[in-house]
Amino acid sequence: MVDILTSLRSLMASHSPALDALVVPSEDYHQSEYVSARDERREFVSGFSGSAGLALITMNEAWLWTDGRYFLQATRQLSDQWTLMRIGEDPPVDTWMADNLPAHAAVGIDPWCISVDTAQRWECAFAEKQQKLIQTTTNLVDEVWKNRPPAETNPIIIHPLEYTGRSVADKLMDLREKFKHEKARGMIITTLDEVAWLYNIRGNDVSYCPVVHAFAIVTSNSAFLYVDKRKVSAEVNSYIEENGIEVREYTAVSSDVLLLASNQLDSTSVVKGAHSELIKDVKIDSNQIGIVGHDKAESEGNKAELIWVDPGSCCYALYSKLNSKEVLLKQSPLALAKALKNPVELEGLKKAHIRDGAAVVQYLVWLDKQMQEIYGASGYFLELESANKKKDLETKKLTEVTVSDKLEGFRASKEHFRGLSFPTISSVGPNGAIIHYSPKAETCAELDPNSIYLFDSGAQYLDGTTDITRTVHFGKASAHEKACYTAVLKGHIALGNARFPNGTNGHVLDILARIPLWKDGLDYRHGTGHGIGSYLNVHEGPHLISFRPQARNVPLQASMTVTDEPGYYEDGNFGIRLENVLIVKEGNTKFNFGDKGYLSFEHITWAPYQTKLIDVSLLMPDEIDWLDTYHSRCRDVLAPYLDESEKAWLKKATEPIGV
Amino acid sequence: MVDILTSLRSLMASHSPALDALVVPSEDYHQSEYVSARDERREFVSGFSGSAGLALITMNEAWLWTDGRYFLQATRQLSDQWTLMRIGEDPPVDTWMADNLPAHAAVGIDPWCISVDTAQRWECAFAEKQQKLIQTTTNLVDEVWKNRPPAETNPIIIHPLEYTGRSVADKLMDLREKFKHEKARGMIITTLDEVAWLYNIRGNDVSYCPVVHAFAIVTSNSAFLYVDKRKVSAEVNSYIEENGIEVREYTAVSSDVLLLASNQLDSTSVVKGAHSELIKDVKIDSNQIGIVGHDKAESEGNKAELIWVDPGSCCYALYSKLNSKEVLLKQSPLALAKALKNPVELEGLKKAHIRDGAAVVQYLVWLDKQMQEIYGASGYFLELESANKKKDLETKKLTEVTVSDKLEGFRASKEHFRGLSFPTISSVGPNGAIIHYSPKAETCAELDPNSIYLFDSGAQYLDGTTDITRTVHFGKASAHEKACYTAVLKGHIALGNARFPNGTNGHVLDILARIPLWKDGLDYRHGTGHGIGSYLNVHEGPHLISFRPQARNVPLQASMTVTDEPGYYEDGNFGIRLENVLIVKEGNTKFNFGDKGYLSFEHITWAPYQTKLIDVSLLMPDEIDWLDTYHSRCRDVLAPYLDESEKAWLKKATEPIGV
Repeated sequence: MVDILTSLRSLMASHSPALDALVVPSEDYHQSEYVSARDERREFVSGFSGSAGLALITMNEAWLWTDGRYFLQATRQLSDQWTLMRIGEDPPVDTWMADNLPAHAAVGIDPWCISVDTAQRWECAFAEKQQKLIQTTTNLVDEVWKNRPPAETNPIIIHPLEYTGRSVADKLMDLREKFKHEKARGMIITTLDEVAWLYNIRGNDVSYCPVVHAFAIVTSNSAFLYVDKRKVSAEVNSYIEENGIEVREYTAVSSDVLLLASNQLDSTSVVKGAHSELIKDVKIDSNQIGIVGHDKAESEGNKAELIWVDPGSCCYALYSKLNSKEVLLKQSPLALAKALKNPVELEGLKKAHIRDGAAVVQYLVWLDKQMQEIYGASGYFLELESANKKKDLETKKLTEVTVSDKLEGFRASKEHFRGLSFPTISSVGPNGAIIHYSPKAETCAELDPNSIYLFDSGAQYLDGTTDITRTVHFGKASAHEKACYTAVLKGHIALGNARFPNGTNGHVLDILARIPLWKDGLDYRHGTGHGIGSYLNVHEGPHLISFRPQARNVPLQASMTVTDEPGYYEDGNFGIRLENVLIVKEGNTKFNFGDKGYLSFEHITWAPYQTKLIDVSLLMPDEIDWLDTYHSRCRDVLAPYLDESEKAWLKKATEPIGV
Repeated sequence: MVDILTSLRSLMASHSPALDALVVPSEDYHQSEYVSARDERREFVSGFSGSAGLALITMNEAWLWTDGRYFLQATRQLSDQWTLMRIGEDPPVDTWMADNLPAHAAVGIDPWCISVDTAQRWECAFAEKQQKLIQTTTNLVDEVWKNRPPAETNPIIIHPLEYTGRSVADKLMDLREKFKHEKARGMIITTLDEVAWLYNIRGNDVSYCPVVHAFAIVTSNSAFLYVDKRKVSAEVNSYIEENGIEVREYTAVSSDVLLLASNQLDSTSVVKGAHSELIKDVKIDSNQIGIVGHDKAESEGNKAELIWVDPGSCCYALYSKLNSKEVLLKQSPLALAKALKNPVELEGLKKAHIRDGAAVVQYLVWLDKQMQEIYGASGYFLELESANKKKDLETKKLTEVTVSDKLEGFRASKEHFRGLSFPTISSVGPNGAIIHYSPKAETCAELDPNSIYLFDSGAQYLDGTTDITRTVHFGKASAHEKACYTAVLKGHIALGNARFPNGTNGHVLDILARIPLWKDGLDYRHGTGHGIGSYLNVHEGPHLISFRPQARNVPLQASMTVTDEPGYYEDGNFGIRLENVLIVKEGNTKFNFGDKGYLSFEHITWAPYQTKLIDVSLLMPDEIDWLDTYHSRCRDVLAPYLDESEKAWLKKATEPIGV
């Protein structure tokens, strides 16, 4: 670590202007949550491997900001050279820099790795002490990173209509309708899952996310894909061209944004098939409202002259090439379009979650047997102290990693499996309290019949992405552990059972999952729900169920997906989390006060809750009813994927707890 | 009505510059919610008498904006000349004006009747079309208002330490501590209850609110009260002077704000007693940090040179006299200081609410008897159709107004009674759906044994202000009415039973009161809770339990008061609301996750819920437990104020519903 910081500080000193501080964020050029190995710059400099965090390096010190999910992990991973800054407890990074860096300080940042929003907020914070945000022309971390992994050249895959449910032509038409409404003449799309969704393509450039490293530019009459052309096979190239999209080199996006700014970006592609009609229409329309030509005097009010940039995701580097007066800084309409799943996507998601639930049950059956055989545990159903059975063979040892590999195996045996959707969290006892724990083979813990075991995992299937968390115990849980499990379950049920009027923001619903915990003075330091993709990213917006009010958070709407995942974490002891994926649907309420329309949720995740961990005396009758109904449905939907012994196990696991 | 609008339009035309539109808000010079008769300008021009609304008059049209509490009432009261604009459904007034008034339009406003926040927001909205906000030098409505009521000359009353719990000297000391923190050298206080609270004075200038029409200015070493000197008796004058406060004429505030702006506002009072010590301290301190003198070069960083103005309450007229660069636009610290009740105030509030609850029970006992005798109702306890008894005498007729007078009588018989805290809402059947219904003797409805009766009322007592709503039926309620009553009750209980960590905003809690209604597709168009004063305004901030996120809303904190008042309103049929006052207190949770400290509520309102209206099958065991415990406590605390027959009635009304 010493070497890296020393090398960086040497580059900071020789930079022109000399940098007083250097910021190394987690994000890549596309503001991705999960990045490829060559983009893990913040981990490379700090050693902290969590998915979210920001490093700040000055000539003598180094700080790392991260959120509540990672406090424990960061404490363990950061060396003495680093100071951990806790988001929510310590000042935010912009305030901190403004207050603590000297007046006129030069703060360096790679402008490809910071969003417009963030850069502008920082510049605003810097104004008082005339500090400056310096856009470095190269990424200083890349310069000191000797063995940086090479760029990927994974092929682009076409994602067919049977899974996407909507053609590229239709998606482009919808987008251009939005352009008209906003008087935009084009849009720069930098978010990887938006590019993949819009063009119905998938890739393999980022672990867990089936996306391609690419940018897109869409104008009223053309569309471009910026990607390493080695990734584009002849077949894919034909498909892309047929859809009226022109493929250009990834690096050409810089110069093309300059052309777009001066209204000189033209497609050289020959447009074929049905799409030519669409484009002709748009051209005629443009003529009618006076877009073609540069006569600014005419019909100024209707002139489409703005370039749409999502300030939360577009990098500052590309934005800086535009004339800010001609930029429409507004959340990308693709975020919401992607979140509103069409019927084909919903059907796919439901099917994927049933197969995924079957894999989880198979895993539990297997794990239950192993825990009894190897560790003398009383098992999933009984509540006895472990028999402290002596292990016969060291090779039989179960670890967090070996069991999660087994879980992956059950998933991999299912139709349409394409990999995991995020690093499996497989955590025993105290490791469960590290919210985004990611076990490593060399250092991970052994399974323990006397500890809670939490696993949070999901997979990518061609027809949908999954994400599920269950918490189990194979021996005798304490009354306290049961009380906590039951409080988490009550919150999970309360949120899932909510009905609410259209227009309700997830921020407002978040409390439903916390109230049963708050009753005992318990809480958790993470949000309660996120959208999930359709064979895309496991985390997607633009909606969120979170205790933090967020400007970009949009109300929940019918056909969105969202997780329901409250938890409770006791540092040094255990972690509990329960997570299902829900679909937002019509509420079918008896009345419709205010003609607003009411919404509710449908669970699409299927796997039992461990009834042994439930203190039934803490449940209300309606909660018991819900649980019994859910469990009964589990049996029905999973049966076709299970063998007789697995079915028998599941039957037992889903016995009604009500009288 | 025609005459008023015509006269106003004539003044608008002859104004220099000519006005395209005139805004007439509800508020007085102090942005009060309740205003005196001579300040009811918006009602005078529009005929709409609700407590909140804004009139906009152009040369040919007139619009009135109001919120969901008043949609029905406004529809009834507005003439054909007016168009009702529904807040939350129609565009907000600033957006609407910007979009619909012509470019360069001149919009007139009396700058004494509009807050800094509102004026600045409007000016911002007006920028695009270069519309202008014109500050009229006189109030045009006053010019056309022939029989405008004269100014009040009610005497100021000293509110003694036995009720306030904290001296003026201590309150001023606290305020000046805040000044130091914000580098402020003075503050303009325009909110009537803040002036009354800070100086421990009360008055009688506004119906229902024991406040004085007054401004205050406090600087680091002086304090002023601007008030009609006819209201200040010799005794009160001595008290005020002893507290280091100088009394000046109400109208002198304008010129004094100019003096304050140029740092030339000096007190001529002789300071006496203990307070001189305080002021000496402050002076010494001021010297040390270089406040005295005008040497701006010295110790600039610490110089106290800002004038604190609350942008949400200070009128634009006074703000406009200041140099905006020297203004600290920030919520008044008095709002929070006033909301955090001290132990003396809390004790007083609890006692006042017990006496008030006794009055409510006495009223219910009386009303129950009357309804049976006069209308042949089965009464409070039985569920039978009315006997349709023929009334003997027209004089025996019960109306919404005659019964509410009786209720006032029960309250007036209680110790420390000083009047009502707001116009009693006494509403039968469909009138209950008019959320802020205020019955008039001539037009109000007769009581009806076959209809729901809702009453929302409160009083001013020397030791506290009260506010309670109960909904009752003296005959046979329908299953639908019971289901709705039970849903409202469930929300009321859920909110009151919440525990939550410090830092939780009332906005986040609001949903708890709605979830049981939302389950059936029901809702209500008002917030769920407001602070309540200590012998002051019945509505006070700066906290709120509301579904709307609001910038000025602060987190709930221990020792605040807040109401818990969900409802359900069915236009043309009935209204249901249940309201108790709660005190925010320490949560005494088993754990304290995150060391945040947890809070809970204590009910201080005591009156039974009508168990006949509860569909017990819809209640959960914990809700039944809560209700039975609350009812049992009602009996205990109210007993000392009731006679034997009233106690017997209450015993029956509070029989446990649990098994």
